[in-house]
Amino acid sequence: MSIAVIHGSTRANGNTEYLTHQAVPKENVTHIYLRDCIIEPIKDERHSEDGFKVINDDNNQITDIMLSHDVLIFSTPIYWYSMSGVMKNFIDRWSQTVREKNYAHFRDCMKGKKVYVIAVGGDSPHIKGLPLVQQFQYICDFFEMSFEGYVIGNAVKPGEIQKDELALSNASLLLKNLLSI
Amino acid sequence: MSIAVIHGSTRANGNTEYLTHQAVPKENVTHIYLRDCIIEPIKDERHSEDGFKVINDDNNQITDIMLSHDVLIFSTPIYWYSMSGVMKNFIDRWSQTVREKNYAHFRDCMKGKKVYVIAVGGDSPHIKGLPLVQQFQYICDFFEMSFEGYVIGNAVKPGEIQKDELALSNASLLLKNLLSI
Amino acid sequence: MSIAVIHGSTRANGNTEYLTHQAVPKENVTHIYLRDCIIEPIKDERHSEDGFKVINDDNNQITDIMLSHDVLIFSTPIYWYSMSGVMKNFIDRWSQTVREKNYAHFRDCMKGKKVYVIAVGGDSPHIKGLPLVQQFQYICDFFEMSFEGYVIGNAVKPGEIQKDELALSNASLLLKNLLSI
Amino acid sequence: MSIAVIHGSTRANGNTEYLTHQAVPKENVTHIYLRDCIIEPIKDERHSEDGFKVINDDNNQITDIMLSHDVLIFSTPIYWYSMSGVMKNFIDRWSQTVREKNYAHFRDCMKGKKVYVIAVGGDSPHIKGLPLVQQFQYICDFFEMSFEGYVIGNAVKPGEIQKDELALSNASLLLKNLLSI
Repeated sequence: MSIAVIHGSTRANGNTEYLTHQAVPKENVTHIYLRDCIIEPIKDERHSEDGFKVINDDNNQITDIMLSHDVLIFSTPIYWYSMSGVMKNFIDRWSQTVREKNYAHFRDCMKGKKVYVIAVGGDSPHIKGLPLVQQFQYICDFFEMSFEGYVIGNAVKPGEIQKDELALSNASLLLKNLLSI
Repeated sequence: MSIAVIHGSTRANGNTEYLTHQAVPKENVTHIYLRDCIIEPIKDERHSEDGFKVINDDNNQITDIMLSHDVLIFSTPIYWYSMSGVMKNFIDRWSQTVREKNYAHFRDCMKGKKVYVIAVGGDSPHIKGLPLVQQFQYICDFFEMSFEGYVIGNAVKPGEIQKDELALSNASLLLKNLLSI
Repeated sequence: MSIAVIHGSTRANGNTEYLTHQAVPKENVTHIYLRDCIIEPIKDERHSEDGFKVINDDNNQITDIMLSHDVLIFSTPIYWYSMSGVMKNFIDRWSQTVREKNYAHFRDCMKGKKVYVIAVGGDSPHIKGLPLVQQFQYICDFFEMSFEGYVIGNAVKPGEIQKDELALSNASLLLKNLLSI
Repeated sequence: MSIAVIHGSTRANGNTEYLTHQAVPKENVTHIYLRDCIIEPIKDERHSEDGFKVINDDNNQITDIMLSHDVLIFSTPIYWYSMSGVMKNFIDRWSQTVREKNYAHFRDCMKGKKVYVIAVGGDSPHIKGLPLVQQFQYICDFFEMSFEGYVIGNAVKPGEIQKDELALSNASLLLKNLLSI
């Protein structure tokens, strides 16, 4: 199975990325770093006469990459008890994409994908990260994707994740799962 | 008490705005429409040598307005089971603001504010909007703000909120509360 | 449509009952007061050789009444952020009932029922009662029942619910809904 | 530190107990099996003239044992997306205990205890067990106990937990933590 990681971190080599790299095979995996892409926030024009305006940013390119993989791993720092704004902007745009002629296949392509979430935060993430987990469950339900699991890490300062034995152990098990599918 | 409404809708006169205008006194209230502002997504530079770079957008101006009011009403459509990306970008920036010299007073100013949330969505919002509610509770906990209540509306098509008797009724009660404080 | 209210309150005429009586038509409705019934906690014997032992308490009688109605209203005080133990014991027993020969129709009968929840608590019930709401959503999902709505009340002392304008208003709207179906 | 495990399983040697025994040191630990105790469901008599009636069951004895330990581990199968009714009945009784003259020290004694939860279920427990986790967080908040962590297992049939590598691994880490405090 093909794997794509969608990184929502806004800095390179942070705790979230470190944990994600523990969990995801290095070979044969596609990594998308949203911070290096230009993705406009959605403007809701569902109900305007002309529908959504075409936006010339990186969204469609990333979408195409995403759609061409079987397993999606959403990796995000926990910002204010949810995903980063950068990742939220990307996901918000799905509301536009599902309505575009060129993406009539979007929902069908999403259906059945396996989804994992990796999230790292510093303020009781095993409790206060749960709204984020629940949110991804609902997103998966919407597209009939299979939410296969999540790994939560507890870290704030650079490198701190390396001391989070629970997160590292769960990332290793996720890696093992990914290698077996 | 002074009231500021922070609107996260990305189109004007939508269901969320309609409901919000039912709930908030028209006179003597400050309305901030985030869609008309430029707010960059945060780039986490907490741990970089030079700290956060100064960003020349509308964030500080909005922040100043927000800080000068006692009651904050966050009004957002439910996008993918959380607030809109536009609102998330604004809130994410608080992580930068709390670390800026000119905003040493940020946390102190936020403390004690009264917060309400108004959220409208179309996919079982009374259940699938709850992670968003929980998220705002944690945000309020962080700043020791008082989360006073929330109104959830069920609507998708333009104008549909006007048939949501439960939401309209709860908005009226919120209005009554706001007028009495 | 026929309506049954399952009361989980452990005292008569408390806040939860008061609110419930605001929400439910007095005429033509069946009221089950679990506190007046004997319902043993479940003993998990799914995997024991002889299966579940027959228990001679009031469970089957209540179950039969429940199954014969189209709309179920679960009314419970919020005890420790979930339903009362008395109500939990009743629901736990469903795990036995679904495996009993005489109740081969249980799941089919439950399917499609409309469910409402009325819950009253004193410690931030609009936030801390949400796990209870989510729990009922999962219960409804399991049986393919339709979770139509919930009313949360904020009260501790006797009679206090009568001052909870929001709860009373939402109970009235629930009543209106029930009368129209 | 002294450790007490409060077992909410209703059958011996089930999946929940197996997982718990992986997580808890065998030596020097107190195990309380609620299924072997008689604990009446609470009857709310807070507001009746004579207050709560004395109940002659095992509740006080178990309470005394619980209060004399520093670390509490609540181990429960997930029944209908929350703790077992047997465990709920025990916790519900705390509302009575805190009001009894002989237990004026209850809240003070609970304060500061370290709490872990071990829960096993079969219907997407990593998602649908989260209301249970959240519920325990609120219970801990109430008593100012420290909710140190939780382990969720996925199992239905006897012995199935032994194949849940993630749960077993997390139980081992919990054991390591317990041995180090």
